This record gives sequence, structure tokens and C-alpha cells, in this order.
Amino acid sequence: MIDTLFNPGSIAVIGASRNQEKIGYTVLRNLKETGFRGQIYPINKTADEILGFKCYPTVSDVGSKIDLAVIALPAKYAPEQVRECAKVGVDYIIAIPGGFSETGHEGKLLEEEIIGILKQSKTRLIGPNTVGVYFPHSGVNTALTPPDRVLFPPKGDIAFISQSGALGLLTMDSISEYGVGISAFVNLGNRIDLDEIELLEYFRTDDKTRSIVMYVENVTNGRPFYEKIKEINKVKPIVMLKAGRTQASAKAASLHTGAMATNDAVFDGALHQAGAVRAYDETELLDYGRALAYSKPLKGKNIAVVTTAGGVGVITTDYISSQTNGIGLSMANLSEATKQRIKEVIVPFGSAENPIDLTADGSVSDYEKVIGILMEDDGVDGIIVYALPQTPKMDKSVVEVIERFAEREKPIIVGVIGSRMGKEILIGLEKKKVPAFPSVQRTVKAVRALYDYSTYIERRRLH
Amino acid sequence: MIDTLFNPGSIAVIGASRNQEKIGYTVLRNLKETGFRGQIYPINKTADEILGFKCYPTVSDVGSKIDLAVIALPAKYAPEQVRECAKVGVDYIIAIPGGFSETGHEGKLLEEEIIGILKQSKTRLIGPNTVGVYFPHSGVNTALTPPDRVLFPPKGDIAFISQSGALGLLTMDSISEYGVGISAFVNLGNRIDLDEIELLEYFRTDDKTRSIVMYVENVTNGRPFYEKIKEINKVKPIVMLKAGRTQASAKAASLHTGAMATNDAVFDGALHQAGAVRAYDETELLDYGRALAYSKPLKGKNIAVVTTAGGVGVITTDYISSQTNGIGLSMANLSEATKQRIKEVIVPFGSAENPIDLTADGSVSDYEKVIGILMEDDGVDGIIVYALPQTPKMDKSVVEVIERFAEREKPIIVGVIGSRMGKEILIGLEKKKVPAFPSVQRTVKAVRALYDYSTYIERRRLH
Repeated sequence: MIDTLFNPGSIAVIGASRNQEKIGYTVLRNLKETGFRGQIYPINKTADEILGFKCYPTVSDVGSKIDLAVIALPAKYAPEQVRECAKVGVDYIIAIPGGFSETGHEGKLLEEEIIGILKQSKTRLIGPNTVGVYFPHSGVNTALTPPDRVLFPPKGDIAFISQSGALGLLTMDSISEYGVGISAFVNLGNRIDLDEIELLEYFRTDDKTRSIVMYVENVTNGRPFYEKIKEINKVKPIVMLKAGRTQASAKAASLHTGAMATNDAVFDGALHQAGAVRAYDETELLDYGRALAYSKPLKGKNIAVVTTAGGVGVITTDYISSQTNGIGLSMANLSEATKQRIKEVIVPFGSAENPIDLTADGSVSDYEKVIGILMEDDGVDGIIVYALPQTPKMDKSVVEVIERFAEREKPIIVGVIGSRMGKEILIGLEKKKVPAFPSVQRTVKAVRALYDYSTYIERRRLH
Repeated sequence: MIDTLFNPGSIAVIGASRNQEKIGYTVLRNLKETGFRGQIYPINKTADEILGFKCYPTVSDVGSKIDLAVIALPAKYAPEQVRECAKVGVDYIIAIPGGFSETGHEGKLLEEEIIGILKQSKTRLIGPNTVGVYFPHSGVNTALTPPDRVLFPPKGDIAFISQSGALGLLTMDSISEYGVGISAFVNLGNRIDLDEIELLEYFRTDDKTRSIVMYVENVTNGRPFYEKIKEINKVKPIVMLKAGRTQASAKAASLHTGAMATNDAVFDGALHQAGAVRAYDETELLDYGRALAYSKPLKGKNIAVVTTAGGVGVITTDYISSQTNGIGLSMANLSEATKQRIKEVIVPFGSAENPIDLTADGSVSDYEKVIGILMEDDGVDGIIVYALPQTPKMDKSVVEVIERFAEREKPIIVGVIGSRMGKEILIGLEKKKVPAFPSVQRTVKAVRALYDYSTYIERRRLH
């Protein structure tokens, strides 16, 4: 039944407006521009038509089934609208306005009134106090921010649940730069009804979702929450950014989402037990989410690196092999046979030692040969490939070469530095669902996330 | 006299070519497209004209003073060309080709021949085995990579010395995305003549350079090098990315630039003593370089944070206040008077506690008022301002507001997340030389770099 939320046939926008400053306008515009193809019913007492859609005075006037209703009116009108929706059998409500329990006693009473109405009906509710949801696969976009301020990412494989609406919008805007896609975004707001556990249940079997990333400040239902994380994480990798780690930030979180201070060491232990990968900021959250969504498991610590820039190879080796300021894995010891084979394909002054340096003479065809050789060395568990734009024999055909190998047994994580051809290569790799990152640090850290998740799954399998 | 290298009146390109695959073509094209306004003399035995420039068979045929000559011919022809240049009194040579000591005995002999010639003359040489130099202020660009592969940054305040040519080109390409500028880029290559110490001397008094960033694998002259770093760093901040930290990466560095393995703890101690800020990758290198070039000193640990996204405030607080996965500074304790003043200007549901949350209602004018109040609280040493695009009252005028405050006594470091309006704000701030970063982590880490440098200078001042 929750499938109706993600794939509604019809959406009512309560408080739809012609006034471009109103949320009721932006939500309608976002639904239209994102390309929702079901029925759209603007609810407005006076207008006949907004943005080309016929208006209705109330949800009761629509006369057809409404799968999803978005409330875009101030808090004080919300209980009445929820009641109407329940009466006509709306399945899901997204209640956008703030002004509820987060603002004090009066808001708390409004919230309780809504909870009372929901209890008497089958109607379910997301929010209140939410920026809404964005489901690119079905074209549902109820976000309150217009697309000339922030970009919405394309269809993709990562489900994103955020307790901070703004952080969610900003992060989606940010990843859109490289065409990183998501399967769904949900900001649950005050969570008076629908919560993370139900969403996780849905994403477990959602075939569009290959990893789940979460921004969490406030865990209200500790035990069942962790149990669910543990259960789902076996099937689909979960990355969690749990903020409020220190006394100072826990105080900030309590003011933001009402989060109770938790002992971060305890939380961290629970997360580790559940095998979820921890992220510490918005960049790591989506980077790790991509690595886990796209990549084969990394079954050991031994990483081979291929580059055309010696310096990039050295910095990468630093990060791989260092425990402090690094990820503490190992540079693969290549077999003599492997080194010999590599020597035969690269230029004489290149390096067949790991990190393998193809030098400025390195061509796409050299990449192809060297990656192929590394795939066959048992001492190599995973490969970092730098597809760098500065050498004359590099071009965008490297994307197809890497994609072919990414389907093989060993994971390939790609690093690309640069904003012209480099950026085109990054976007090309993203389209092919190859995990690729625009800096050395982000590339190497993604390898560690992959290692942590892969070894957790392997340990679970053996026990 | 070294000023002639950075501001030459005339440049000869030895081996200039019409063949677009040749380095001699790319160098000439880069000189032309970067807008060098002095005399350009392509040296080519058979062509009359290339890219609109009249050709000369040899440097002797030019008949006018040549300040700088670029050798874009294979290694074996280099000694003869160096001899010619010395004979006609060329001041500086940039010897681009590889194939010298880095490739074995034969190359070593060629190198020694060149050293012998230079000893007998006043001509100085950069290289060989270098990607060249890029001086945007005087329009000198001898890079061997064409601008359709990598972008060259605009004029700016950061001098960049790199022992890896490719890493230099890639990093310049990468920072160009946000319009980050540099004052000069030099890749010294095999350093048979000109070295870092002379460049540092130049940048010390170069009024276009406000900070110096260096990528180093190989320190040949340990003691004088550190002494120079220490001396210059008092006047202009130096950020150093010293790669080859571990056994594995030191081996990679020795294959790349012939670096001797050094004990990283010893190096780190020396760097700390010299007060240079250490970076661990290409992103940190330029981020810290910008923070130190643009910002006022940060005189204490107490940081105030202003945001319109609560989650961004919480993650930032985590990074500021945590020792592990964080920078170990402090969230400023705002005075009661400050909090009261802030309460009076922000919306009722915002937070006047640090991190200050203006919420989705936060306007540019709120930013202006709140930053002004924070400037006057003695408990605040520095301010992180998040200029975030998701709220309806944010617009690009925030750039001017922040710029005005950045001229005041306390440092302001800006974080912006987003690729549409967010990116425009970032580029706008960069134009105004306000340090701004596209993620929470990068923003907070820049604050730490600023703190480290500022406290070093303060300690030096007191002793």
C-alpha cells in the first residue's frame, strides 16, 4: 500500500496558488516541471485554473480518487484539511507547513488534533514541517523550493531519507552538478505518523533503490530502529550521517529537531554492529551511497592504482596506506608476472610498480590493457583508476572501457580531477553507474566505505 | 633579475610547430590564447609563419633580445639549443622535454652537458622534464596541455609551485570551476638549475602573491629549504603538500621524482616549526592557500556559525567541536546581550544560540544584522557564514554583504552548498576574495588551517 505514496495516480495540492511567493505555487510548478503524468488537482476556493490545471474548491469537489494530497496552507488550517482528506479517502498526505510542535504549546495542540484524526482513518501522513518529497522515477516533486534556486537530481539508484529538509535540498542540488541520481528523497519532518522504519521497509524491496542514505539527528525509537537498520542493511547497504556527536552539537540538534542527546560512542557501536557505514557530512553521505550502490564488493585490503599523473599516484598511496590521515588499507603487491605483463604494454619510462604510472604517454588503450592484467592478479582486491584529462591520448572513450571492467568481479573506483574534459568524464561515468569522484581524497574514502560494508557482509555470511 | 622570468618582454618557442600533435604547437597556442602581449618568436627551420607569428630558423636569427626561450624539442636536441640561447644572451630557458636523468644514464649525460653550458653563462634554466609555467598576470603560458583539455585559472593571489607537472595542471583545471585564481604556477621538473628557494625568494616580495602553495615529493637541500620556508612563511603563508608519507608511498615517490625516503614525523616536525600549514591532497592545498591568502587572522578558538539550514549547523558544530573527525576548536559562547540582540532581528522560531539558525525565513538583511552583532561580541573570534540558496529570501546580494564584513577585524569563512544559485554565490565570493567553500567539511577544515597559521604568527610575534 505504501507503494501508492511513491507512485500515486493522482495528487491534490491544497492551497495551490497563483502567487509565485506561495508554497502552493511552487509545489504545483515542481510537480508540473518534474513531469508527473498522473492527475493533478489544485485545490483553491477562487481560481478556475492555475498553471494550466483546473482548480477545485475543496478535495470533496474533485469527485475522483486522490492518492496523495499536499497541504500547502498555514498550520492553523491543517487539521481541517486533514479531516477533509480522511473523509474522501485520500491515501497519503504530505503536510508541508511548519508551526507545529517545533514552535511550542499551541503548535503541539494542532499536531495532536491531526494525530487524533489520523487514528480514526486509513489516511497516512508525512510531516508536518517538511520540505516534502521528490520521487524522480514517478515525477512526484512536492518540494517547496523552485528549480531556479536548486537543482533536482535525475533518476538514480539511491534512496535519501533526511531529517533536515534544507540539508536534503542542498545536497540534492550539489550532487546534480555531476548528474548523480536518486531513486527517492523523503524529508519526514515532525514524523507524527510515517517514520523511517516504514520507509526502510519499502526501500528494501524497491527495485529502483540500490542503497539507502540517511541524515539523522533524532532517534526516537532506538531499539526497533537499529534492528531495522541491521535487517535491511544485509540486503541493501545503508549509509548514515548521524549528527550531534559532541555536547555542543547535540545541543544544536535538540534546538533543530528536538533530538535527545545520545552518547555518540554507543550510537557508533550500534551502527557498527548493524554494519551501516557512517558518514560525517553531506559529501561523504552521497559519495558512500554511490560507491555501495554501484560497486561490486571489495573482498580484501589490497588496492591497485592506475594513473597518468605520478603525483596523484603518490598522494593516493599516502591515503591508502596511512592509518593517520588515511584509510589504513594496503597497496597491492603485484606478482612478478603481472609487473612483467604491464611492462610490456606501457611506455619504457612508465612504472609497472603499484601505483602504476602510465605517464603522459598513457592512452585509453593502455588503460584497457593494464586494468585487464590487474583483474587477473589474485593479489589485487580492488582497483582505483584515475581517468585524467591532461594527457594527449586520453579521451571520453575511457568511460566505456572502464564500464566494461566494472561489470567484472573486482570493484573499480574512479578518480577524475578537472572541470573541463575531466567533468565530462565524471558525468559519463555517473551515467554508466560507475562510482567516480572528483578528488583524490573522496576517491580513496569511498574505497574505505566499500571495504567496510563488504567485509561486514562477508562476516555475516560466514556466521 | 628573476623578475624577467615572470614578466618577460619577449619569448622564443624553439621547436614551434604547425602540427597540432606537437608540444611546440600547444605552447605557442597557449601563449597566444593566454594573451601574452610581448614579442613572440617561433623558432622553426622551414615555416614562415605559425598561428600568425613570423618564424625564425634559429634564435640567432631573431636579432632582438630574447628574455625567455621555451625548448619544445626532444631531449637530444636540447644541449645544442641551450648553447645557442646562452650565446645570444637569453635570460631564462624553460626546457620542457623529458628523457633526461629520470630515464637513465644516457639522459643523465645530456643533463650534465646542459649543466656545463649553463655554468659558463648567465642564462638560467627551468627543467628539464617540466610541463612549464603559467603566469596569468603577464600572460605567459608554456603549458604543454591545450585549453580544450584543462582550464587555466584566472589571475589571482596564490603562487603554486609543484614538483608534479600533471598534478599542477589537474589542480589548476579543478579550481577553475569556481573561478579560483593564481598569481603564478611553476613546475620545476628535474631542477638542474632553478629551484624552489629562488622562487620563494621572488614570491616573498611579489605583490601579486598573497600565499604560496607547494606540492613536494623530493627535498634535496633539507636544511636551507626549511630555513627558507621558515623565513618566508613569516611574511607570506606557505601551505605544503608533502607526499610520500608512508613506506609504500615513499617508494612510489622515488620512482616518480627520485625522492629519497624521509621520515615523515621528522618532516612534519620541521614543517610545524616553520609554521607552514600542511595539506594532504590537492583540494586541501588550494583551499588552505585561499583561506590564508584572503582572510584576516583568526586570533582564537571560538567560532560562531550562521545558517539557514539547521542540519548544516549541526554537522558544522560536530566538525568544529570534535577532536576525532573534526578540528578540535570551540563553538563560541555568545554573551546574553548578543543572544538578545540576535533574537530581536531573527524570526521567532529561529535559534539565537550558536549555531545561529535563521531558518527558511532568513533573509540577506538578517544575515547582515546577525553578522554585525557577532562582530561586536568579544567571545567570537571568527565566523562561519553559510550562504545557502534554498530559502526564498536568499539571493546573490549576500555576496556584497559578506564582502563588507570580510574587511572588518574578524575572519569570515563562507560555506555554500549547491550547484545552481549556490555556485553563482561561490563564484561571486571568489571574485571578491572572500574564502568560500562548497561543502561543510572543506569550510571547517579551512578554518583550522587559518587558526594554525594565525596562532603560529602570533607566537612568533610574542617571542
